[in-house]
Amino acid sequence: MTIIAMLDYASVLVFALTGALVASRAQLDLVGFAFFACLTGLGGGTLRDLLLDRTPIWIDNPAFLMVGCGAAALVFFTAHLFESRYRAILWLDAGALGVAVAAGAGLAENLSQPPIIVLVMGIATGCAGGLMRDVVANEVPMVLKQGELYVTCALIGSAALLLSPQIGVPMASLACAGITFALRAGSLVFGWALPTYKPRPPRK
Amino acid sequence: MTIIAMLDYASVLVFALTGALVASRAQLDLVGFAFFACLTGLGGGTLRDLLLDRTPIWIDNPAFLMVGCGAAALVFFTAHLFESRYRAILWLDAGALGVAVAAGAGLAENLSQPPIIVLVMGIATGCAGGLMRDVVANEVPMVLKQGELYVTCALIGSAALLLSPQIGVPMASLACAGITFALRAGSLVFGWALPTYKPRPPRK
Amino acid sequence: MTIIAMLDYASVLVFALTGALVASRAQLDLVGFAFFACLTGLGGGTLRDLLLDRTPIWIDNPAFLMVGCGAAALVFFTAHLFESRYRAILWLDAGALGVAVAAGAGLAENLSQPPIIVLVMGIATGCAGGLMRDVVANEVPMVLKQGELYVTCALIGSAALLLSPQIGVPMASLACAGITFALRAGSLVFGWALPTYKPRPPRK
Repeated sequence: MTIIAMLDYASVLVFALTGALVASRAQLDLVGFAFFACLTGLGGGTLRDLLLDRTPIWIDNPAFLMVGCGAAALVFFTAHLFESRYRAILWLDAGALGVAVAAGAGLAENLSQPPIIVLVMGIATGCAGGLMRDVVANEVPMVLKQGELYVTCALIGSAALLLSPQIGVPMASLACAGITFALRAGSLVFGWALPTYKPRPPRK
Repeated sequence: MTIIAMLDYASVLVFALTGALVASRAQLDLVGFAFFACLTGLGGGTLRDLLLDRTPIWIDNPAFLMVGCGAAALVFFTAHLFESRYRAILWLDAGALGVAVAAGAGLAENLSQPPIIVLVMGIATGCAGGLMRDVVANEVPMVLKQGELYVTCALIGSAALLLSPQIGVPMASLACAGITFALRAGSLVFGWALPTYKPRPPRK
Repeated sequence: MTIIAMLDYASVLVFALTGALVASRAQLDLVGFAFFACLTGLGGGTLRDLLLDRTPIWIDNPAFLMVGCGAAALVFFTAHLFESRYRAILWLDAGALGVAVAAGAGLAENLSQPPIIVLVMGIATGCAGGLMRDVVANEVPMVLKQGELYVTCALIGSAALLLSPQIGVPMASLACAGITFALRAGSLVFGWALPTYKPRPPRK
């Protein structure tokens, strides 16, 4: 199995866990858990594949759906063990972001897309699944949270994937996943952020 | 006309009626009715076609758009006759779910997709149009309603379509539509449900 | 550069400005501005291209992404100059609707699609970017605003594009953009509207 295939599986698994946890907060049944797990786990990769005119990964290889359903079942029976499901969602989402960005940007690079498209595919693959989860579940999308890095992590991680070979770093995909996750974790723990827009006149 | 084409028309028509009723609750004009009718009626089939890399049905055959616009006009002039538009939406949506699941799963089977993809296409075609309607209209998506069967009906209906030929049931599509609708109706009338997730510690 | 390419650039630019203004209302950082600018600026054209089975314009030509990011940077540093950012969004959105409808309907006509598909592509290209922006930003979609013309402007503008050559009007694309914008502007300034649905029994 190639590194990109492994990253694809990992991102489906971890995003699916966050989807199932959101379903647990909405008190759905097991099928509802599977629905949210697969939507979240497969949403980003599916968007990437549609944009690049490829068959979605899970149609070629239904094992991805099994991963999503397995994550749903796991969470259905264990979610009560988490002290705070919201924090579990935040942290799993951070990990999923890392691997999904690497999977998205890595695939675009393998297809010899130009660098800017590699960046966009990293961002789209990393952010779209969680965005669909939050929109469908009526929660505030994580990309909208003020004073947190989110899209920025995906952007810098994808840039790391592009630059790694040129500065002699091996395993560019893993560097990408690690940097993306580290930035997101630093934002969650230490409050790392970029300057946000501050309206000067009263906001209307 | 094949059975699947008939199911496609029926699902567009009935989902379009629910879209137009949602537009009536938002007090839109006739064009707004047509917009919601076509979004709801064609959303599920369009998603299915994009995922399976086919031209969306309504681009090949614009008659589907006419069905959506006709449903919009019908509702614009008759919605006041319904005693409760919300109940009308619930029940029409149940009927539309039945026929859309059959159309989605049936098409995937005709394309010789593996069984798990047939299940997913049944669910996606059945649920996506209503989901788009609810997300755009800022209503709580039906897939999120606690203690009701929704995705489950689509899943079991699609499974029925797969199993019917093997146990000698003719007209698998109709069995699928009937079972999907019957389960949803049973959930609405008798409260049929699967066990839902119950958080044991206080929910955060 | 063809007229349709110019319209594509103009619609990306002006919709991207509205996306960035929405990001400013949510007090995001510069990368969040770029995310919303590109989502809004490219969303409608990307939907059109996926439906017509074409490669999204910005994958073939990443300059479109640059336009989106440029618009984001411009707004990040100047949004405080607007007296009312909400009114700026409304009016820029009206202008973007005009050029996007012309770009969408014009491309469909160049591809020799039947007239009804030209109308739908005008509406979809014009409305989808702003709709994605509003759904992701948790704002009420403009297509839902009661007593305002929105989808109607796109419909009549697209129809103007189809009819212009037959009544001898040159530059059908510009007629389309102008009529779409004029109708939307008339709705904002003078309250032009179509009769809306008025429920007679109490609304449930």
